[in-house]
Amino acid sequence: MKALHQSLFAIATIILLISNCVQAKQSPNLVISAQDVAMMQAAIKGDGSFAKTFIKTKAIVDAQMALPMSVPTPADGGGGYTHERHKKNYQLMYNAGVIYQLSQNNKYADYVRDMLLEYAELYPSIGLHPQRKVNSQNPGKLFWQSLNEAVWLVYTIQAYDLVHDSLADDDINKIEQQLLRPVAIFLSEGQPSTFNKIHNHGTWAAAGVGMAGYVMNEAEWVEKALYDLEKSGKGGFLRQLDELFSPQGYYNEGPYYQRYALMPFITFAKAINNNQPERNIFDYRDGVILKAITTTIDLSYNGLFFPINDAIKSKGIDTIELVNGVTIAYGLTQDSRLLDIARQQGQIILTGDGLKVAKALDAGRVTPYQFTSTAFGDGADGTEGAFVVMRQHADGEPADKGQALVFKPSAQGLGHGHFDKLNWQFYDKGAEIVSDYGAARFLNVEAKYGGRYLPENKTYAKQTIAHNTVVVDERSHFDASTKLGNQHHPELLFFKHTAQGSVSSAQIDTAYQKVNLHRTMALVKLPDSGEPLAFDIFGVKGDEFHQIDLPLHYQGQLIDSSFARNAFAKSLTPLGNSNGYQHLWLTAQARPEAGLAKITWLNDNGSFYTHTAIVDGETEVLFTRTGANDPNFNLRNEAAFIYRKKMSKAHRFISVIEPHGVYNPSKEFTLAATSKISALNYQFEDELELIKVRLVTGKQYLLAINHKEHLPAKTKFSYQGTDYLFSDRFHLFKIITKQ
Amino acid sequence: MKALHQSLFAIATIILLISNCVQAKQSPNLVISAQDVAMMQAAIKGDGSFAKTFIKTKAIVDAQMALPMSVPTPADGGGGYTHERHKKNYQLMYNAGVIYQLSQNNKYADYVRDMLLEYAELYPSIGLHPQRKVNSQNPGKLFWQSLNEAVWLVYTIQAYDLVHDSLADDDINKIEQQLLRPVAIFLSEGQPSTFNKIHNHGTWAAAGVGMAGYVMNEAEWVEKALYDLEKSGKGGFLRQLDELFSPQGYYNEGPYYQRYALMPFITFAKAINNNQPERNIFDYRDGVILKAITTTIDLSYNGLFFPINDAIKSKGIDTIELVNGVTIAYGLTQDSRLLDIARQQGQIILTGDGLKVAKALDAGRVTPYQFTSTAFGDGADGTEGAFVVMRQHADGEPADKGQALVFKPSAQGLGHGHFDKLNWQFYDKGAEIVSDYGAARFLNVEAKYGGRYLPENKTYAKQTIAHNTVVVDERSHFDASTKLGNQHHPELLFFKHTAQGSVSSAQIDTAYQKVNLHRTMALVKLPDSGEPLAFDIFGVKGDEFHQIDLPLHYQGQLIDSSFARNAFAKSLTPLGNSNGYQHLWLTAQARPEAGLAKITWLNDNGSFYTHTAIVDGETEVLFTRTGANDPNFNLRNEAAFIYRKKMSKAHRFISVIEPHGVYNPSKEFTLAATSKISALNYQFEDELELIKVRLVTGKQYLLAINHKEHLPAKTKFSYQGTDYLFSDRFHLFKIITKQ
Repeated sequence: MKALHQSLFAIATIILLISNCVQAKQSPNLVISAQDVAMMQAAIKGDGSFAKTFIKTKAIVDAQMALPMSVPTPADGGGGYTHERHKKNYQLMYNAGVIYQLSQNNKYADYVRDMLLEYAELYPSIGLHPQRKVNSQNPGKLFWQSLNEAVWLVYTIQAYDLVHDSLADDDINKIEQQLLRPVAIFLSEGQPSTFNKIHNHGTWAAAGVGMAGYVMNEAEWVEKALYDLEKSGKGGFLRQLDELFSPQGYYNEGPYYQRYALMPFITFAKAINNNQPERNIFDYRDGVILKAITTTIDLSYNGLFFPINDAIKSKGIDTIELVNGVTIAYGLTQDSRLLDIARQQGQIILTGDGLKVAKALDAGRVTPYQFTSTAFGDGADGTEGAFVVMRQHADGEPADKGQALVFKPSAQGLGHGHFDKLNWQFYDKGAEIVSDYGAARFLNVEAKYGGRYLPENKTYAKQTIAHNTVVVDERSHFDASTKLGNQHHPELLFFKHTAQGSVSSAQIDTAYQKVNLHRTMALVKLPDSGEPLAFDIFGVKGDEFHQIDLPLHYQGQLIDSSFARNAFAKSLTPLGNSNGYQHLWLTAQARPEAGLAKITWLNDNGSFYTHTAIVDGETEVLFTRTGANDPNFNLRNEAAFIYRKKMSKAHRFISVIEPHGVYNPSKEFTLAATSKISALNYQFEDELELIKVRLVTGKQYLLAINHKEHLPAKTKFSYQGTDYLFSDRFHLFKIITKQ
Repeated sequence: MKALHQSLFAIATIILLISNCVQAKQSPNLVISAQDVAMMQAAIKGDGSFAKTFIKTKAIVDAQMALPMSVPTPADGGGGYTHERHKKNYQLMYNAGVIYQLSQNNKYADYVRDMLLEYAELYPSIGLHPQRKVNSQNPGKLFWQSLNEAVWLVYTIQAYDLVHDSLADDDINKIEQQLLRPVAIFLSEGQPSTFNKIHNHGTWAAAGVGMAGYVMNEAEWVEKALYDLEKSGKGGFLRQLDELFSPQGYYNEGPYYQRYALMPFITFAKAINNNQPERNIFDYRDGVILKAITTTIDLSYNGLFFPINDAIKSKGIDTIELVNGVTIAYGLTQDSRLLDIARQQGQIILTGDGLKVAKALDAGRVTPYQFTSTAFGDGADGTEGAFVVMRQHADGEPADKGQALVFKPSAQGLGHGHFDKLNWQFYDKGAEIVSDYGAARFLNVEAKYGGRYLPENKTYAKQTIAHNTVVVDERSHFDASTKLGNQHHPELLFFKHTAQGSVSSAQIDTAYQKVNLHRTMALVKLPDSGEPLAFDIFGVKGDEFHQIDLPLHYQGQLIDSSFARNAFAKSLTPLGNSNGYQHLWLTAQARPEAGLAKITWLNDNGSFYTHTAIVDGETEVLFTRTGANDPNFNLRNEAAFIYRKKMSKAHRFISVIEPHGVYNPSKEFTLAATSKISALNYQFEDELELIKVRLVTGKQYLLAINHKEHLPAKTKFSYQGTDYLFSDRFHLFKIITKQ
């Protein structure tokens, strides 16, 4: 046995040595391999979409190459001239490198060489960037922060790899010694805290340094990129893959940063796969890289990402990172549903995988992408809450014409996370109906706080009141402490999707001390008419008396409420003094009588939406609009209403949103402009939650949800003299009235 | 000579008798003729777009016919059940009639017959509509106002005509005696003031009654429809054509009502042409009906009508009235440019002309519609001011990607007119940049004031401050008296379009007593870069001291101003007490130093817009937002800034709007977010207006406008030591700086 052990050990060691040994250099061999190039060269002789993209890209590169080359001494921050110039330069070098490989025309390689040589002259002469932040942990040299420098390296090392076969030894020597090696060393040993960090900045650095390792035969750099500077495995690319994504491929910071984070992961993974296929990087952690790509798609509605946390709302699936992601994923899987997304993206990538996508699109192999209802577990092991997406649509209708309900019992999401535990959003007919403000930022617009996150991002957009979730005593969750938020997360109690719809429930005890927040949400279709309803039951329980606010930010024009509103027609004042309240003008207030309170608004999509709540006669409704304490007009002007319960130890907000009718002023017709719901009844007994909905037609429905932790095979109950039985987490019954 | 005269007189009398004699009935012969039917029957055997439309329409009719027929006793006003049901019924009868003619399947004719018989039972039993307005001049019976009743007759008489050949004599008798004749008589003799009125309501009545005359062989009805009840020619269809359109085909109330007004004109004209081609109705008044159709198209940008006066802003060229208009116009002219509009409308009409359009579209005969820069004269003879449309776009770019500047020195426009003399709007890259509020109305939304014009239409939308034109002493033009407004109109001084762009100037002395308002607007492209600039020079002169406000309502997010703003961050109050000012929250105010004042905003189209004004250091800038004194949240929430000059007898506002840059957060780049204009100089001497623009690049341009009433062949002038010469109303010079 001992001999066998020894032999096995020896074999394992050899395998390890082989796998760790970087292959002798062949060029190119990062994202684009020499084999890819051969096929791509053949394809551009045809007239498919790949050839068209080549022609278009070549024209763009030609136009840019016709201008004077500029490698300026770094001076400006984000959005400024030198910043943007260096960003354009790496993109241009990369594109010119690709065009060189495809056209075999040396002028493109020469251009890349000349620019690299200019950088090689510049780089040794510059210190840290003049616009770096004071006491920054991660200053750059070419850019104000090293993140941009790492991105520069990821593109530039590929450009270098693409033109390498054309370079004279002297030039290779100068470019590597004066530029590429110093940059790689600056980004690794020069900034250990960033390089080793389990964070998107770390991933870019790892990708850049690791790819440089492949190109310049520095096996150690690859090892460090994969396992951290000490090769300990406590940091580095693999640890980032372990920790930054959940098993379902959900990225802690949310979709806006997920698509951004994706880029270095997929780029470096592709380069690893080309150089060391034996690492089976795409199988790592049960294929987490592929999952991260498809999850990014799944976190969108009508082409735009769900704008949770710090997010620019116009970002969507056509973002270049996801175009690359879908391209690489299709190259690996040939899954024709990915072509549906590629078609919507409308961009072909000039790589080997891009050629596969182009050919498949040209051949019309698209099948519809299947958007599903899913709870995406959060955290490295998927147990730190979840990000829940519920969807439904009519048969034969695309997902984006139907509804999406997004429920957010997910973790804090680091520095870009918002204080919005158990927040939700609602989408219908292509539009955002119950909305999230996203980030307060005008990206790269110098006049708007240098294009960075505006002060109002912190004072408003991140605060709880800017979201659709409970605020206790006008204080934000975790008292708006990111550190505290990162230590806790909500608990997903259950998520279930059936043919009738989706239901999910979650809670959190730590957003406020000694207060439990518990929310159950459901998106269902009425059994006979197929009409959608979105239920929201928000329970708040504490030891002491609190003021409990539940805001709802709506998109559209207020049409009507079932109760009188006292509007502040003559003067407006802010709703509060801090925690985001100072940015809301109080435009009206009301105290609806006990019973049902309805608020109807009209969205630009031409549908009406009515929020129907059960009220106790002591709950106030406050109507607000953003814009107070905003001297620079930095905030968008948006409307909300807030259900406010004062002096309460426990309260349950029960409501349903109902899309209805059509407003078509162009064709001059208006249908069903009023809500169909005539009564709501609620009870919660023995962990069985029952909500009865009565329509004006007299039809009645009963949504039953069993909250038992250990769900029995069958749930039996009696309601108003009738026995009911169901076998899942929930069921929506049509109540048959006895004659 | 006497004998000859007598003979000629006799011949003329005979011709008159023949032409006035309604032909023996053949069916159908209103908009659709028997000859059309034969061709349409052939076409539906093919598979072109006409056949597809037939199949689709037949399916819709089949689905509606499968439901129980409902001819309810009139009860509800606009938007209510019986109102909408009767509207649907006439549409259904018309469609079923068409399907009957095309399919020759009697079930469709029988359905129309059965519904007509139900109406024939109902009609004699009902009096005036219960929801009619108190003391209304024009109540209906089936509908709350007779306008709808006239529309009902226009459709129903066509439906009857389409199924006439299938009806038994008894049914004909009952339908005509109990329904169609009473309705026609009710709408003519029963309401002389409406029937004889030179107004859109009169046109619908004339069209319905006249067509009924053709179908039921009542030549007198046709005569009355054409010449009024007394056949005096003081009213009736021809007089309406004389007075409601200008020679250029511009309709006094503006495009929103123009497209609506179009429908009875084109429908009745087509029926006249089929029944009495010898009337040459389409040649009447130099082809004014065709001009009215093309002018309606010309009054749009990016598919939407310019929303001046009472207008629902989502109305555009795909409105069914204009689909019919373009169809009939194409039938007459076979002008392939009309197909460009038909293609955008995407609707085929099941008529003989509709078949021509369908065949031409199927054959790909579209050529681009040519949107031009035009001053559409207003008033019956085209001299009551004008509605000026200036357009420009880059070569090869569609008109809707370029700019449109709309200048409104047009007449009041009757009851739907706004008090906005010399108002303007600006469009760029598909979007409204300097905007018009349009009408305050949620069409047919019961909860919003019954779907009618909201009170805020009068208190805000019609008032001068809601527009982009001068308000003197916080009072609206004509003190908001429609009667007074209708008595006056601005004077168009000139309009000129050249390869460099367009310039127009107009004035009015009557909007305010003893105050002259004089505005000159220009839309030009800079000679070398092609960059667009929109100039606005607004002169105000009075005998006494006044407060002069010039508002600009902008669409987008305020980015920056070149001067400090004092924002009302802690509380808001309305800007004024009346004339629309009470609806504006004052959000910030400023007093820029003498020199240039710049305000930059960002539109959703991704472009920046900077308004640069010459200021004297004593002009205030007020920033506002609609929503004050609006307890029902009826107003949309929109932003404006107002240049305010106090205590002034004369003032001239000089400004230029400059589109610049790109904001693309999706692709993460921002370009040219700041204005390029570094200086503006202005002088007006001896009726020569000179505006010098200096850019940050150092380039300088000089816009010279000769205001002389009698323009000389050449204008010579000297400016800063250089001589200039131009031969048109205006010229834009590039200033060559001497070294």
